[in-house]
Amino acid sequence: MPPRLFEAVPNFSEGRDVGKISRIADSVRNSLDVRVLGLHTDPDHNRSVLTFVGEEAPILRASVALARACATEIDLAAQSGVHPRMGSLDVLPFVPLGQPLSDATLEDAASLAKRAGEAIGSLGLPVYLYGAAASAPHRTHLADVRRGGYEGLAARIGDPMWRPDFGPEKLPASSGAVAVGARPFLVAFNAYLDTDDVEVARAVAGEVRERDGGLPGVKALGLEVGGRAQVSMNLTDLGRTSIPVALEAVRRSAGRHGARVESTELVGLVPMTAVLEVARYYLALPELGPEHVLEAGLWERGHGTSESGP
Amino acid sequence: MPPRLFEAVPNFSEGRDVGKISRIADSVRNSLDVRVLGLHTDPDHNRSVLTFVGEEAPILRASVALARACATEIDLAAQSGVHPRMGSLDVLPFVPLGQPLSDATLEDAASLAKRAGEAIGSLGLPVYLYGAAASAPHRTHLADVRRGGYEGLAARIGDPMWRPDFGPEKLPASSGAVAVGARPFLVAFNAYLDTDDVEVARAVAGEVRERDGGLPGVKALGLEVGGRAQVSMNLTDLGRTSIPVALEAVRRSAGRHGARVESTELVGLVPMTAVLEVARYYLALPELGPEHVLEAGLWERGHGTSESGP
Repeated sequence: MPPRLFEAVPNFSEGRDVGKISRIADSVRNSLDVRVLGLHTDPDHNRSVLTFVGEEAPILRASVALARACATEIDLAAQSGVHPRMGSLDVLPFVPLGQPLSDATLEDAASLAKRAGEAIGSLGLPVYLYGAAASAPHRTHLADVRRGGYEGLAARIGDPMWRPDFGPEKLPASSGAVAVGARPFLVAFNAYLDTDDVEVARAVAGEVRERDGGLPGVKALGLEVGGRAQVSMNLTDLGRTSIPVALEAVRRSAGRHGARVESTELVGLVPMTAVLEVARYYLALPELGPEHVLEAGLWERGHGTSESGP
Repeated sequence: MPPRLFEAVPNFSEGRDVGKISRIADSVRNSLDVRVLGLHTDPDHNRSVLTFVGEEAPILRASVALARACATEIDLAAQSGVHPRMGSLDVLPFVPLGQPLSDATLEDAASLAKRAGEAIGSLGLPVYLYGAAASAPHRTHLADVRRGGYEGLAARIGDPMWRPDFGPEKLPASSGAVAVGARPFLVAFNAYLDTDDVEVARAVAGEVRERDGGLPGVKALGLEVGGRAQVSMNLTDLGRTSIPVALEAVRRSAGRHGARVESTELVGLVPMTAVLEVARYYLALPELGPEHVLEAGLWERGHGTSESGP
């Protein structure tokens, strides 16, 4: 097991030009010792999300290469899209991959974010730290940092409260600024109900979320998505509330409101242990572990030993 | 994806002497391009089971090295144990790892078994092909081939019906003979009921198995194991009957007989797709695939490309 492994989930402000997107993604793919796990492009929002993992030094190198590629490829002044953006490389969150994947903690991710922010600042981009890396409480929430997008930030960058953590104190028109942060690993898990009544989803969300006395580590909102009521959840501590436990609570709560869960949705990636926990729960098979999965032995761990088995 | 990948599950007649067991297992571990996934030793039966995977040429090499190590380390004349054994390397089955792991078929595994049998025969061990590799219908069932163990085989090796497929026509006292075969991949999945009445398990087994009009690809028996009624299943075609579908059929059938499934058990290895199917089924999450699992991207496939996603 590598000592500390992180996931980076950068959002950049290009979701239409395939050539630009691919050159930007290549800046990470061509970095040594990081692994690109996904690229999601959104033409409507004219925005893309890249997911990659690695240890601290390689992920730092790749992040700087990415910031440089975004600044080169994207001209923010010419860019348009529905999403309020403040930079070419808009947001760069680092997520610790904790047990059983590695020993990384949120503090490690915050320290990585600060080092990355400093390096990106020295490229000439204003950098704002947020989340667990924030330098002040009013900068903790990403929404506060990028309120009003590029234009909003341009108006307040002179305010000492909004001086960048790194880089110039003036907003470059072409590249804008970057929010670099750290946040805990979480699983985004949504349940669609067999009703279009969003009030049912709101009631269910209220019953399952930690804030209102529900399950530990569960955040939840009731939304309407595509004409269906959706209970949108963030599971922030799978060790305390697993996917099946959260889902069964939603099923019971929905039942009390006369609704049923029709289908569910996972956004992003989950560790294999989370999938195994689903199987353990529903099969009543507590012993099921990675050692029972053929691929877990077949595939060499990129950062681990090549010896598996007994 | 490698073109053809196989699992070998050799049983050898030593389950007590740790030094011998480890030297025998090392003969496979030190073979190039095969991967040991498990070693199960059973002192009562004085017998061990090794699981390893690889492509045809490496698995063939490792199998011959294993047969040689077993013949060197084990003196069958001095060996004792509950299990009826006929050789030092007693049984050597090859299992094709089909889609999505590779393109290997049962025919490929049979052809591998014949090549391995020939090579092991040339070491001076009588070899009997069985299963899909059998040279005659009466040799298809392993139980028929090794009826009476070493002593039974010694009595009939002169019979033309039981001439070895490869190797000498006389049974060496120290090493005995080897049964080399091919069989389809299967998942051994058992459900324990909350009753000690084995008749309930037998009734449930009769309702779910294909032979009696139950689920396709399901073999089942009702057993008593450790004082509990157990429905012991082989799922031979996960594409037609998955683990959750088999379990839910057992749960419904047990319910009709006034019993409940208390826990389940998987023997051996399952492909990750089988675990994902459990999650898809119970979470109502049909889109869940390997691309959602962090490790599937993190781990390099031993035999594949190093590029993952997008």
